[in-house]
Amino acid sequence: MAADPNLAQRLLAGDRRALARAISLVENDDPAGWELVREVYPHTGRSTVVGITGAPGAGKSTLIAGLVKNRRAADRSVAVLSIDPSSPFTQGALLGDRIRLTEHFLDAGVFIRSMANRGALGGLSEASLQAALLMDAAGRDDVFLETVGVGQAEVDIIDHADTILLVLMPGGGDSVQALKAGIMEIPDIIVVNKADHPLTQTMVREIRGVLSLAPQGSWKVPILQTEAVDGRGIDELMDKLVEHRAHIESEGTLSRRRRHNLRNEVLALATHRMRRDIEQRLAEGDGFEKLIDDVVARRLDPASAAAMVLGQDVP
Amino acid sequence: MAADPNLAQRLLAGDRRALARAISLVENDDPAGWELVREVYPHTGRSTVVGITGAPGAGKSTLIAGLVKNRRAADRSVAVLSIDPSSPFTQGALLGDRIRLTEHFLDAGVFIRSMANRGALGGLSEASLQAALLMDAAGRDDVFLETVGVGQAEVDIIDHADTILLVLMPGGGDSVQALKAGIMEIPDIIVVNKADHPLTQTMVREIRGVLSLAPQGSWKVPILQTEAVDGRGIDELMDKLVEHRAHIESEGTLSRRRRHNLRNEVLALATHRMRRDIEQRLAEGDGFEKLIDDVVARRLDPASAAAMVLGQDVP
Repeated sequence: MAADPNLAQRLLAGDRRALARAISLVENDDPAGWELVREVYPHTGRSTVVGITGAPGAGKSTLIAGLVKNRRAADRSVAVLSIDPSSPFTQGALLGDRIRLTEHFLDAGVFIRSMANRGALGGLSEASLQAALLMDAAGRDDVFLETVGVGQAEVDIIDHADTILLVLMPGGGDSVQALKAGIMEIPDIIVVNKADHPLTQTMVREIRGVLSLAPQGSWKVPILQTEAVDGRGIDELMDKLVEHRAHIESEGTLSRRRRHNLRNEVLALATHRMRRDIEQRLAEGDGFEKLIDDVVARRLDPASAAAMVLGQDVP
Repeated sequence: MAADPNLAQRLLAGDRRALARAISLVENDDPAGWELVREVYPHTGRSTVVGITGAPGAGKSTLIAGLVKNRRAADRSVAVLSIDPSSPFTQGALLGDRIRLTEHFLDAGVFIRSMANRGALGGLSEASLQAALLMDAAGRDDVFLETVGVGQAEVDIIDHADTILLVLMPGGGDSVQALKAGIMEIPDIIVVNKADHPLTQTMVREIRGVLSLAPQGSWKVPILQTEAVDGRGIDELMDKLVEHRAHIESEGTLSRRRRHNLRNEVLALATHRMRRDIEQRLAEGDGFEKLIDDVVARRLDPASAAAMVLGQDVP
């Protein structure tokens, strides 16, 4: 049982404080947190989950603030989970009137949470995936996941989304190059934010070129232009997000995507646990450091040392 | 013993074909490859290993071609390992006279190899780390590792380098933003390539601003400007690489760095093996897919499914 026997019920009833408490439990790798997720899991799968990725500075947080406002106007409850360490959500720093989030902080229909601690015991992606499930169980209509799109944790968390939105800024061409090179996966929707920049049209043309070479499914990836700071293009973006969601539902892609994502999630959780178990075992005693001494002295090769760590025979 | 009993000796004698054959063995996850690395490992640790990272399109390959030319002029033997799928090395496509590599292909003092197959049985980073060790054992004076700097495999491989060089291009600002946000680690040397671009000085100033905020060690990270296509700035860059290497040797940082890197390598190898073992086990029979059915139907939560996969008790 969870430490607080009513926590699951309060969470399922949509209580914000219960949700905050529950996320802290999984973030701290508290067994009560895992127990809680297990208890509420049958009530998940109802939220619309949008993953928002893009380089730091592209304006993801301002864009999310705009989307939140739009959703609230439509009377939908919202949760935001940010695992971008450069995000104002994560830093707890508000950029004053540039990001008008203060109004949302006072609104019970908006729940904002960030995770940046890469040293979290259970692993950042493990905790953030559980946090997203808790937001879903708490009955939030829309869940926005903000990630910086670099590193395994970020890829894991974005894998949890139904719709993936890539935010680019004119003058930040590295992401476009990564798309072009096939290193970054093609998202469902692309937004060029800060669209008053003189290089916007060049960038839009470049993205269009990349998309024309990518294999086309039944969904044509739209390129939108926004100016998140003053709200321009936000409603059109939200319309596209809703349209994409309707599309994957009608095509049956949503259930396939969710199965694929849950499969990856189980594998990622299993791998994280294994790695944690190994690291915990290695932290006990000085056997591992002695093994590394041998590797450094070139008496023992890394692969054999790895096999010894796993308690396997050296191949 | 390795399939070819003389392979280790030929490799240690610097035979190019033996090196190529040995890398294919580790790439194919052939037990003879692992055996070979174990055999030659005592002869490693002599190469100067430089990791070159940066977004696709920044000009890493052209820069490497220039550095190779410089090293050959100094009569040093060179190996290049590219795991950037967008690299011309990896694609086997030469950009004609833009990247003058043809001359190097005929030079026995230059060994070029690429790995892009993310589906490699043993994992890309596992195989590439072993390949770097084989190049070292084969007596190459300089080893250049080219990676795109995105994803875990790339982080693992760059961790193998003594000196890390970040290549930026004007107009590709995402990497600078990632540096600024503390998401990308500060490298040892920064190069702004394609320095004839009008935005070069803006970018240099921006990088200088980022570096001024970063904690300063005894090494002051230099910002160089190159025009790799026509060789401008390459010799100055090579001088800086040599200077950095001498610096970490004299400060004792090299041995600390190598210990740290080898430690990470052993952990990465252990984790990869574990993951592979799990995936192999899951591929047998339909038990895993049935487990996922339960997760999709919300009857079983992902964390409990992960515990079951690991054969652990559900917490």
